[in-house]
Amino acid sequence: MAEKTRRPRAETPKGFRDYFGAEVTERKRMLDQIAAVYHRYGFDPLETSAVETVEALGKFLPDVDRPNEGVFAWADEDQDWLALRYDLTAPLARVAAQYRNDLPSPYRRYAMGPVWRNEKPGPGRFRQFYQCDADTVGSASVAADAEICAMLADALEEVGIPRGDYVVKVNNRKILNGVMEVAGLAGDDKEVERGIVLRAIDKIDRLGVEGVRALLGEGRKDESGDFTKGAGLSAEQADVVIGFTTARRDSGVATCARLRALVGASVTGADGVDELEAIAALLAAQGYGPDRIVIDPGVVRGLGYYTGPVYEAELTFKILDEKGRPRNFGSVAGGGRYDGLVKRFTGQDVPATGVSIGVDRLLAALRAKGRVAGSSQGPVVVTVMDRDRMADYMAMVGELRQAGIRAEVYLGNPKNFGNQLKYADKRASPIAVIQGGTEAAAGKVILKDLILGAKIAESATLEEWKDRPAQVEVPRADLAAAVRKMLGQ
Amino acid sequence: MAEKTRRPRAETPKGFRDYFGAEVTERKRMLDQIAAVYHRYGFDPLETSAVETVEALGKFLPDVDRPNEGVFAWADEDQDWLALRYDLTAPLARVAAQYRNDLPSPYRRYAMGPVWRNEKPGPGRFRQFYQCDADTVGSASVAADAEICAMLADALEEVGIPRGDYVVKVNNRKILNGVMEVAGLAGDDKEVERGIVLRAIDKIDRLGVEGVRALLGEGRKDESGDFTKGAGLSAEQADVVIGFTTARRDSGVATCARLRALVGASVTGADGVDELEAIAALLAAQGYGPDRIVIDPGVVRGLGYYTGPVYEAELTFKILDEKGRPRNFGSVAGGGRYDGLVKRFTGQDVPATGVSIGVDRLLAALRAKGRVAGSSQGPVVVTVMDRDRMADYMAMVGELRQAGIRAEVYLGNPKNFGNQLKYADKRASPIAVIQGGTEAAAGKVILKDLILGAKIAESATLEEWKDRPAQVEVPRADLAAAVRKMLGQ
Repeated sequence: MAEKTRRPRAETPKGFRDYFGAEVTERKRMLDQIAAVYHRYGFDPLETSAVETVEALGKFLPDVDRPNEGVFAWADEDQDWLALRYDLTAPLARVAAQYRNDLPSPYRRYAMGPVWRNEKPGPGRFRQFYQCDADTVGSASVAADAEICAMLADALEEVGIPRGDYVVKVNNRKILNGVMEVAGLAGDDKEVERGIVLRAIDKIDRLGVEGVRALLGEGRKDESGDFTKGAGLSAEQADVVIGFTTARRDSGVATCARLRALVGASVTGADGVDELEAIAALLAAQGYGPDRIVIDPGVVRGLGYYTGPVYEAELTFKILDEKGRPRNFGSVAGGGRYDGLVKRFTGQDVPATGVSIGVDRLLAALRAKGRVAGSSQGPVVVTVMDRDRMADYMAMVGELRQAGIRAEVYLGNPKNFGNQLKYADKRASPIAVIQGGTEAAAGKVILKDLILGAKIAESATLEEWKDRPAQVEVPRADLAAAVRKMLGQ
Repeated sequence: MAEKTRRPRAETPKGFRDYFGAEVTERKRMLDQIAAVYHRYGFDPLETSAVETVEALGKFLPDVDRPNEGVFAWADEDQDWLALRYDLTAPLARVAAQYRNDLPSPYRRYAMGPVWRNEKPGPGRFRQFYQCDADTVGSASVAADAEICAMLADALEEVGIPRGDYVVKVNNRKILNGVMEVAGLAGDDKEVERGIVLRAIDKIDRLGVEGVRALLGEGRKDESGDFTKGAGLSAEQADVVIGFTTARRDSGVATCARLRALVGASVTGADGVDELEAIAALLAAQGYGPDRIVIDPGVVRGLGYYTGPVYEAELTFKILDEKGRPRNFGSVAGGGRYDGLVKRFTGQDVPATGVSIGVDRLLAALRAKGRVAGSSQGPVVVTVMDRDRMADYMAMVGELRQAGIRAEVYLGNPKNFGNQLKYADKRASPIAVIQGGTEAAAGKVILKDLILGAKIAESATLEEWKDRPAQVEVPRADLAAAVRKMLGQ
């Protein structure tokens, strides 16, 4: 019996969170802006369900650096294991295979929505978060990759990241494979070494050349004394890799020339350089120069399934970290070509390329820059002076809404008027409407300007506010017009 | 090894589905319109995660008529059982308890998103579907119920259901409880009978008075010969219930008078009639007359947790069913007052009332009425006549997009030009842009009006199209302007 009457805990599950008010509208507005860009590029929306069969999701877990992370899965009653999707790419691959006879080919689609990861939650890391993807399935042309890069640049500008504050970096996995070949790491028995090399390259910004060289060789001890085992490359092998990571030059043409010198001996590598040059030429023809999109051999992308061009959007402005030090904001989106995901289902090669925007990081960047849109004013609050005249107050609020003004009547216990003003304050209400018996008899209402009132309360020099009354009495018939005027509409 | 190389099936899990293109944008547009109304009424958005602890969801499964339906649940690694939410009300109750010291009170919130039910899928019945709720937590006033009813009417009109094509019906569970008292069914030992009576009342529209009377008495055999056991009421008891179900009169005032005559002897029943009268008066003061909102004793609402006013929006126009017979479209939204859900967590009474709109049914209604918005035109398709000049084609498509025109370049294999036009057709493209070597040399492009072309192809009288060429040649420099003109922009 005691068990039965125990109260449940009112808690979000560990690693999950709730989003209130402006947190919801600001994200929604950003996603709407991105969707408008995707739409303009001819991409169609697709919404798959949150639930997929584990079989369809496969073993393509998202991040090689975190092999232990998993999915939320359960056994369905009569058949399969089901799971929550961990990204939007795996469901797209399933859709592209399932509807391959009905979809246009190439198929450009965008998708936005939550994904779920069954991983250890940490500060700022949640087990449900939004992704916002655009992919082209069925085109082997690098024009598809170039288009996604241009669209990514457009999307960033559309949401409020000005040109110069971001850069889209493009690289090609084939060049990386060429580097591995030239360095003698192409064999099936070198998979572990290749993994270490990839992760080392990915850390060049943070560790610098010497740190990466240590990881390519015997290993590296970090400041905390922890030792990371290296790839065990010889000095000559390491030189090839280091040469690659430092191959970026002032122009895309010069970078490509340097890359060709490094990996031109490998057929795969040369092919990768050809593709990069083609992408740069296609982008230049549309006016996307290196102020927006650059060739950068430093971009690796963690995902194992990429097979060709890879790209990443980085914000180039600095923000202050938790210790007040300026830091690069870093990556907010990334993607690349993955030609093997649909083949899992159909056995046939289906080329595909696409990008995923990290919604929460991009939103955080916009907030850091003070460029977030979608926040909205609190409602006008009609207070209740006389609970028997609720119908009158509801008529007022009805008129305000019909005039397009966000408004509500106070629905709590009206006995304590101070509580009503506290409520209006908590609602960030711009105006309180007040009508007691005296005003009602005189056919008047009082409008209290809560924004001005708050300023007056804060202000040291009361003088300047003297001739701007924070409270006015207006005829009841003029309610909506007077509120609109006070709102500055 | 054979196991390892078996291909996964490309299938949505049973009972789930994918939404493509216009299916996504039409629903989004409808939800945006509803959100705008909720916003105007002062409601704030709340987005909780899809996942809750089973403990927090509790045993309030949604529908007493389908007790076997359940949730998708799994055991978390180190702690609780987790589950996908089955509605948006249970998470709200959890939030209202968890943040009770921080939220404004009363707390008006709206929420939109998918919910999940682990039930047997059927035709048109899916295991993931959208809900769109608005609730006021912390107000015991019937003004809160009246406000939700008015807002529901506004929301229906906003999305495109004209006045006269819908009605919001209001009733009160207290009156039902009064009926039970008067009929001698109030005791704890009568729960089964009360359940049968409630379900019988709910079927009055379908079964008529005699059908309901049979269910109140011994039981009823339907056309298929299936027998449903009745509540076993005496003729006198059944008269009270039948009197209630037929209590609706031409005006709310007359209906309330009739209800008072029936259940006035019960304190609870009389209280319920008082509340209904108050709601009607509050709505009348805002101009919501019986053309929009009516008192209707026929409304029961299946959910067990309702404690006061209940309401339901019904569409009053007819649609043709699968056999071509005209049928009432029926209910698209419903809700009521539930004062016990937050108490589960806190032990304290927290009054609450709210509505849930059945998103898919409402969208189906709009489609049936031809009033759905949010569909969009396919993109202008720039075809590829010469694959070496892809940069030129991408420049064209870039110009079109910069002019705000939805446009894409054909990214498939360009060898077969017929395939490109088939693709444009599949994309519902209004215009194909064509530039071969001859046109390029002359500084021209060809615009093919695909909509006009399709009309000409269909038309019996070719004459009328004669002077409207479906294909024009324009200077390359005029591309965007000429496309805009052909689009009628």
